[in-house]
Amino acid sequence: MYQERIDRVLAAMKAMDLEQMLVSDPDSIWYLTGYDVFPFERLYALCLRQSGQHTLFLNKMFPVPTFPCEQVWFSDTEDYLTMLAQHVDAHKPIGIDKDWPARFLLPLMAHNPSSRCVLASDCVDDARASKDAAEQALMRTASQINDRVMERAAAFIKEGMTEREIADYITAQYVLEGCDSVSFQPIVSFGANAANPHHEADQTVLKAGDCIVLDIGGRKGRYCSDMTRTLFCKTAAPKYAAIHDLVRAANELAEQMLRPGVPLCDLDIAARNHIAAAGYGPYFTHRLGHFIGQTEHEKGDVSETSPLIAKPGMIFSIEPGVYLPGEFGVRVEDLVLVTEDGCEILNGVDKHYQIVG
Amino acid sequence: MYQERIDRVLAAMKAMDLEQMLVSDPDSIWYLTGYDVFPFERLYALCLRQSGQHTLFLNKMFPVPTFPCEQVWFSDTEDYLTMLAQHVDAHKPIGIDKDWPARFLLPLMAHNPSSRCVLASDCVDDARASKDAAEQALMRTASQINDRVMERAAAFIKEGMTEREIADYITAQYVLEGCDSVSFQPIVSFGANAANPHHEADQTVLKAGDCIVLDIGGRKGRYCSDMTRTLFCKTAAPKYAAIHDLVRAANELAEQMLRPGVPLCDLDIAARNHIAAAGYGPYFTHRLGHFIGQTEHEKGDVSETSPLIAKPGMIFSIEPGVYLPGEFGVRVEDLVLVTEDGCEILNGVDKHYQIVG
Repeated sequence: MYQERIDRVLAAMKAMDLEQMLVSDPDSIWYLTGYDVFPFERLYALCLRQSGQHTLFLNKMFPVPTFPCEQVWFSDTEDYLTMLAQHVDAHKPIGIDKDWPARFLLPLMAHNPSSRCVLASDCVDDARASKDAAEQALMRTASQINDRVMERAAAFIKEGMTEREIADYITAQYVLEGCDSVSFQPIVSFGANAANPHHEADQTVLKAGDCIVLDIGGRKGRYCSDMTRTLFCKTAAPKYAAIHDLVRAANELAEQMLRPGVPLCDLDIAARNHIAAAGYGPYFTHRLGHFIGQTEHEKGDVSETSPLIAKPGMIFSIEPGVYLPGEFGVRVEDLVLVTEDGCEILNGVDKHYQIVG
Repeated sequence: MYQERIDRVLAAMKAMDLEQMLVSDPDSIWYLTGYDVFPFERLYALCLRQSGQHTLFLNKMFPVPTFPCEQVWFSDTEDYLTMLAQHVDAHKPIGIDKDWPARFLLPLMAHNPSSRCVLASDCVDDARASKDAAEQALMRTASQINDRVMERAAAFIKEGMTEREIADYITAQYVLEGCDSVSFQPIVSFGANAANPHHEADQTVLKAGDCIVLDIGGRKGRYCSDMTRTLFCKTAAPKYAAIHDLVRAANELAEQMLRPGVPLCDLDIAARNHIAAAGYGPYFTHRLGHFIGQTEHEKGDVSETSPLIAKPGMIFSIEPGVYLPGEFGVRVEDLVLVTEDGCEILNGVDKHYQIVG
């Protein structure tokens, strides 16, 4: 499995004429080797080479990896950047991970002034964007948990509760389900708060007639879930119920269109046009979706300007929304997996609005 | 207050012959302007200039800052790196923050090939290492909360509980105390688990005779606390009790030495020698302490190789430990604030071991 993943990355590097690349994202290194370390501020990198001779750069505080490759060990007090500079080929371009910080990159460039550093994380990120069978299984499990948590949350909510109280309840459910953590802090937004798509749960109290946006996810076996449903407390005003139906239809429209070969920008445009046709275009203020996997947001988006084409194995969110400032907000979100002939929706919770409380 | 902080940074930049610097750490930008945004993967930077004409680079999804300076706004689909490159002086060196990622740094360097990028975050980080009066007050408050949580945790612990159960109780206490979050996941380690200084709380069950390492902290008003106490369940074996006394004495020795002008390496060496004299030198496997503030670990350490000299306003941890693999571990940690003529210990919980359970 690891060799297959590495081969995909090496092929992408070859297309960029890269013989070597420093992979530094711990999630990417885990993906390519199964070795799991979080380095905090310490240097940590995997040098991938077309020759097949790969090197891990490791602090002596890290555990010993089982992955078979050259290992360069250093302590906090050694000159590890010189050691790193000596282990790359200074006469050839070096691929660099997008998140590698200046405190490592600038000294490497100073050590090897003749070598050209090239942004190359797409080689890894594009491989990670298409989930293999092992990853698909983990993503399904995480989303099945998310379905259960969403249904429990909907049953728990009562008029008079605060957003914070519900968010804490949701967080506790992921613990009970054996998740590593939440994918992100649960978003629980009542009424006008829901007009901010990233509202942080606070002491706002739930009243009859409020919409309730629940945007939640848990991380299990390293892989993340992410789903949004919008409910109403006691009653839904006809205007808001109609906007909910509109947004749900936009979500379903995009999901129905999805199959291999479809440009992801087309999904965004179709959902956006559907919402705009009802006069709410200016109130759908964000992209339709984002890729997801080991982290809640991974490289790749579903937007009007996305250059990506749907390929089997891709997993991303479909999450249209409408936000009326000072008043109301609604979002309906699933995770979808592109299959050989269409797509599999990883979430099973009914998308019609539910009346709770 | 912000002008005073900016002036300290500009003075440090001047000493490096820097007329301009891109500050990108959101905590640093908050420190210098009071503007609070977490940009996720988006570009976000404050360009500080000796001329006093500073610029914030902002995504249109961010709120409007009240800090008075030039603002350059961009959307996700605009060519914001070109905009940034056009707003810095391409003919003069540019100071760069240590954590600025390659995905911004390499394109900036490609846009302005004649300008030299220089690691300059020390200019901000050294300013942040010495806390001003407002920050000292926040650090005191956070540590007072931590004292209360530690005492409540000690009273809560009973034989038969799991590490996870106690860690969850501790996390809940920070919520009750109105903290923003924990400073880090609480470390709760029983018996042999305590031999790993970074053990993650799991389902291990507390037995009579176990040591209990509690390394905990909460974040309130953005500032972090961090304290460790080691307890025993029901009874302490004489060997372990003696090691605890040794480590406590090393902690107290370092704290007694601390005053302005003392090299921080001397504190580490004194504590280390004290432990080594009893034969446990090889089992004190980490540095004596680290700086702390808005994050749990900030730039600056208290180690044998630290070049730093104690200055009023510095806040860091003093945390000697002894770790016997497969057997036992102990650590005693306070946060200390360097004052004009000595130091103020921010934690008030008794450092002698307590018998609980």
